[in-house]
Amino acid sequence: MRFFGYFRSSSAYRCRIAFNLKGVATEFVPVNLRDGAQKQHDFRDLNPQGLVPALDTGEAVLTQSLAIIEWLEETRPDPALLPGDPLARAHVRAFAQVIACEIHPLQNLRVLNFIKSQHGQDQDGADAWCRHWIGEGLAACEAIAASQTHGGAFTFGDTPGLADICLVPQIFSADRFGLDTAPFGRLREIRAACEALPEFAQAHPARQPDAV
Amino acid sequence: MRFFGYFRSSSAYRCRIAFNLKGVATEFVPVNLRDGAQKQHDFRDLNPQGLVPALDTGEAVLTQSLAIIEWLEETRPDPALLPGDPLARAHVRAFAQVIACEIHPLQNLRVLNFIKSQHGQDQDGADAWCRHWIGEGLAACEAIAASQTHGGAFTFGDTPGLADICLVPQIFSADRFGLDTAPFGRLREIRAACEALPEFAQAHPARQPDAV
Repeated sequence: MRFFGYFRSSSAYRCRIAFNLKGVATEFVPVNLRDGAQKQHDFRDLNPQGLVPALDTGEAVLTQSLAIIEWLEETRPDPALLPGDPLARAHVRAFAQVIACEIHPLQNLRVLNFIKSQHGQDQDGADAWCRHWIGEGLAACEAIAASQTHGGAFTFGDTPGLADICLVPQIFSADRFGLDTAPFGRLREIRAACEALPEFAQAHPARQPDAV
Repeated sequence: MRFFGYFRSSSAYRCRIAFNLKGVATEFVPVNLRDGAQKQHDFRDLNPQGLVPALDTGEAVLTQSLAIIEWLEETRPDPALLPGDPLARAHVRAFAQVIACEIHPLQNLRVLNFIKSQHGQDQDGADAWCRHWIGEGLAACEAIAASQTHGGAFTFGDTPGLADICLVPQIFSADRFGLDTAPFGRLREIRAACEALPEFAQAHPARQPDAV
C-alpha cells in the first residue's frame, strides 16, 4: 500500500501511528504541502480534495484519516483501537472528533493562508488563532480525559486507541503554535505514556523522511 | 432518550435525519446557541465542550454527531446507513468527513464570532468566509458524487446513508450563506431525492419547534 502524507500533517501523523499499532507496512510517498504539491493534477486525480493523507490500497484510494483508521480497524481488528461496547466506542469516537472536527480543521495550512491573505493576519495573528482553537478544544479533551476512572495510562484504558492516536499529534501542534499545555495535566500524562511506545515514537514528524 | 440540539445546527440536523431513518423517537431539548445557552453550567455539565448536539441515552451522554450516528448504526443496524464492505464504508465515511471535518467546523457560529471580533470582519466578510470554505468542500463532494457509477438516487446507491445525512444539512447551510450551488449539479439531484423522503423533510430546520 502507498501512503501519501506530509511529515507535519496531524492527520497523516494519526495514520502513521495507527499503521504502526496495527503492524501495517506502507510505502510512504511525501506530498510537500508547503510547495503546493497537493494541488497538482497527479495528486488531485488520486484525491479530488487535494488534501493529505491518502492511502492507495491497490484496490482503492482512501482519504480522510478517521475513515482510513476505521477501515484499518475493520480489516485488521487486532490490536483493537476501539472498545467493543457501542457506548464506549461512541465516547472514544467523540473524543477523536473533538480533535478531528473541532480543533484540527481550524489550524490547517489552507485556513492559515486564508486569514493571512484575506483578514490581514500576520504570523503572530495566525499563531494566536491556532492557540485559541487548540486551547479551547484541548480544554474539552482534558475535561473528558480527567473524568475517566479506569486507572489506565491511556485516554480510555490501559491500551492505546483511537483517542490517543488523535491526541498525540494535536499536542504536537499545540507545541508548534506555542500554546502553554501546562493546564492539560492529564493529556500530558497520556502523551508521555504514548510516546514511550515505539509505535508512537516512530510516527513522530521529526522522524519522517520528508522532515525539514 | 433526550436529544439536545438547535434547529439551525448542521450537526443536530444530521442527527435528526439519522433518528428518523432509524425510526428512533427522542425527546427534543432546545439549546439556544444564539443566547449562549450552550455555555451555561447545566449544559456544560452534560457536555463539557458546550456544543450541540448531545444525546442522553439514559445510560450515557453522547456527543459529536458522527459518533452518535455510528452508535445508532451499531445498536440499530436496520436500515443500514453504511454499506457492508469495508472499502465501501471507508468511502462513505470519507465523504461524510469532508463535510464534518473540512467544511462545517469553519462555518460554526463560534468561528464566525471570532473572525468578527478579532479579525474585524463584518457580516459580509463572515458570509464570504463561509462561502469560500463551503464552496471548496462541496466541489470535492461533487467530484466524488459525480464519479459514482451505481445509478442510484443517493450519493452511494439507491438508499440514503451517512453521506446523504451529512450532505443535505451542508447544502442548507450553503444556501443560508448565499453560495451559488448551481455548479454542484449532482449534489442538488441527491438533495432533491433526499428531501422527497419524509425522514429528511421532517428533519428540516424550519420544521423544528425552536425555529425562529
